[in-house]
Amino acid sequence: MEEMELVFNEYIKLMESGNYIELKKELNDENAANLAEFFEELPDDRQLFIFRLLTKDNAADVFSYMDSDTQEHIVKSITDNEVRNIVDELCMDDTVDFLSEAPANLVTKVLRNTDENKRELINKFLNYPENSAGSIMTIEFVQFHELMTVSRAMEQLRKTGVDKETIYTCYVVDSSRKLQGVLPLRRLILADDDTIVRELMNDDIISVGTLDDQEYISHLFKKYNLIAMPVVDQENRLVGIITVDDIVDVIEQENTEDIEKMSALLPSDDEYLKTSIFALAKNRIPWLLVLMISGTISGAIMGLYDDLLARVIALSTFVPLLMGTGGNAGSQASTLIIRGMALGEIEMKDILKVMWKEFRVGLISGAILSLVNFIRLSIMEPDQFYVNITVSISMLCVVVVAKSIGCTLPIFAKKCGFDPAIMAGPLITTIVDSVALIIFFNIAGVLV
Amino acid sequence: MEEMELVFNEYIKLMESGNYIELKKELNDENAANLAEFFEELPDDRQLFIFRLLTKDNAADVFSYMDSDTQEHIVKSITDNEVRNIVDELCMDDTVDFLSEAPANLVTKVLRNTDENKRELINKFLNYPENSAGSIMTIEFVQFHELMTVSRAMEQLRKTGVDKETIYTCYVVDSSRKLQGVLPLRRLILADDDTIVRELMNDDIISVGTLDDQEYISHLFKKYNLIAMPVVDQENRLVGIITVDDIVDVIEQENTEDIEKMSALLPSDDEYLKTSIFALAKNRIPWLLVLMISGTISGAIMGLYDDLLARVIALSTFVPLLMGTGGNAGSQASTLIIRGMALGEIEMKDILKVMWKEFRVGLISGAILSLVNFIRLSIMEPDQFYVNITVSISMLCVVVVAKSIGCTLPIFAKKCGFDPAIMAGPLITTIVDSVALIIFFNIAGVLV
Repeated sequence: MEEMELVFNEYIKLMESGNYIELKKELNDENAANLAEFFEELPDDRQLFIFRLLTKDNAADVFSYMDSDTQEHIVKSITDNEVRNIVDELCMDDTVDFLSEAPANLVTKVLRNTDENKRELINKFLNYPENSAGSIMTIEFVQFHELMTVSRAMEQLRKTGVDKETIYTCYVVDSSRKLQGVLPLRRLILADDDTIVRELMNDDIISVGTLDDQEYISHLFKKYNLIAMPVVDQENRLVGIITVDDIVDVIEQENTEDIEKMSALLPSDDEYLKTSIFALAKNRIPWLLVLMISGTISGAIMGLYDDLLARVIALSTFVPLLMGTGGNAGSQASTLIIRGMALGEIEMKDILKVMWKEFRVGLISGAILSLVNFIRLSIMEPDQFYVNITVSISMLCVVVVAKSIGCTLPIFAKKCGFDPAIMAGPLITTIVDSVALIIFFNIAGVLV
Repeated sequence: MEEMELVFNEYIKLMESGNYIELKKELNDENAANLAEFFEELPDDRQLFIFRLLTKDNAADVFSYMDSDTQEHIVKSITDNEVRNIVDELCMDDTVDFLSEAPANLVTKVLRNTDENKRELINKFLNYPENSAGSIMTIEFVQFHELMTVSRAMEQLRKTGVDKETIYTCYVVDSSRKLQGVLPLRRLILADDDTIVRELMNDDIISVGTLDDQEYISHLFKKYNLIAMPVVDQENRLVGIITVDDIVDVIEQENTEDIEKMSALLPSDDEYLKTSIFALAKNRIPWLLVLMISGTISGAIMGLYDDLLARVIALSTFVPLLMGTGGNAGSQASTLIIRGMALGEIEMKDILKVMWKEFRVGLISGAILSLVNFIRLSIMEPDQFYVNITVSISMLCVVVVAKSIGCTLPIFAKKCGFDPAIMAGPLITTIVDSVALIIFFNIAGVLV
């Protein structure tokens, strides 16, 4: 975003020339997400000065878009009074987001400046398990009693005057606050004044419990094309709502987690550039060690055939080719299955269909790779016919077996309660490595 | 969703017992997304019968949620008149979605039953490039002239009576239909009747052009937490809007594409179970062939050292271990960099920071792996000290080099205009394989 850089430079120039009136005006006109980006690029000692030029509303708004480092720096530097102003304006979910990552002294500073009711609520929110509906929901929603008329509902809406996107889906509750229905704002606007809210609402409610997992929730959002979803407690009382913009973040987070698992990494929530080298190493070493064991097994298998290898030294030069191709063929299959399961397109019951499909795909790809190899070897090494034929037959077998292993292991992993994503490239590759060697040496033993 | 299965069985029972009145009532009360799922599970010959029990609105709504196979079957089977009813009710983006995937005879059938204005529009939409803003936008939006009062705007809103989520963000245009501002519905509701729309609107507009790519658009949605975004033509005239529920699909699609590329697959839009084995094989063979070349290079490298291998046959048994670990270590690094770039967290300018970080992470992980290996080998093979020391030193070097290759290649790929996602596991692994062998044999040449 070069364009943005130009605007930021403009602000810096205004600051340096001391034209604070103009700067203040421009800053308060700027989009909050852009300003948050501007803050992240500012040196620490200038952030506070600029932050204080923002109006109360804007300050809270920009704050909610900042990354956690910048947020912490701001909260650390401002007065208690300023903290109170920000917390007053912030949405509950943004406050909780910040607090759940902040160091203890900042949490204390914020809670000290929060009124008792809100503090109690915040504490309750902080207790919801990570990635649960409770931890991502917000309490800024609009609810109507089921017996209200449309005109009273509109009046209440105007009075509370929530200027938030969360008013586009309103919720209808009974006298004991139990959720009775959902009322899109558009329907309220188009209705007659005297209609009772109850008659207007949709009672086909898709809701989740406070402890439901965010991945499940994001599936519901995708399936039903929702823009908001109510969260209820065990007695079906409405306690919060989740909005689609938070779900967009959840989806990206779940995808990142899957991609990391698929590359033999322990998943991490932090941005790469902000993670320490020790944390990075800690997330990588466990899988490298596990996978090393299977590398050792492949080595041991080669050791079993050392007579054969000593006799036909050329054989060992085909080991990287067969292991590599097998690993890649297996990863391709496992990736498609893992992704298909994550998107809900492939289920446990499809296992036989999947295996039959992969068997045939393996035959086609294996046959082509095998043929290409045979032609290449016949031209380049015409005098070792039996080695060439061994490599070509092994190639076909390895690809077929690799595809079969690659497609079944993710499904089995899920059956055993593991995340299928761990059965991706790295693990499949090391398993296929051993199998490829056994196939190759056995065929070689017969033919060479 | 066991629960859903029970409901579906209920419908089937009603159908079989001939209780069509009750069935019709229940179907029309059911959620459209659920019904679409029900249709997908029904045998072809029953779909039509059930579909005809739906009211006109519901039929179109359910249709928009169906997968393309079921949609095609429905359109193929119904009368021209029924096609007209569905197309009348369908949103433009859903119609275009269907048509862009449907076979030619069905496209003709639909276009024949569309009035001329809509047909012209559809044709225009079908001409937008795949994955462009034009191809995913909808034309069901609300626009006001900038000089309207709030009361006139509300009146117009009620008159057009669009019962769609797309009315939550309204757009303000001037007399030549150029986009002047954005007006959230909530602000309109809270405003005084006599206020001029122009004074109420937000003129800090985030818009895209019809040809902008959907990946870029999804970045904007994430950055600014949007629920809708206007699409303008080259003269800045408002031509459509994109809503967040479509962006959710785009995000999943882009993630799938990245994951596929990262596993050496040509990306595909189709669901796994619905893709033919030839299409699957076609998406896999090209990369397997490319990667086979580098497997061949690794083999050739081994060939260069066949004297050494013949002399110390034990060396070859460590080849899988070193190649495997190197490949995994490199994939881990490349995955984090690719994902970081996709999420906009890592940019080209960070390359030195990234390399220095990975160098140190490589040293830490390499040292630990090397130590674990040395201890294991010293216990298991105490009599081959020099081989053991060779393997351990090689392990450290291979991991450091693999991390460095893994983190730089994705950034270079981007610099050269390629998608960084191709520089993931499989390609990194095969590149690292060759490097690992050279390191290993050179160290062995000195020590053994």
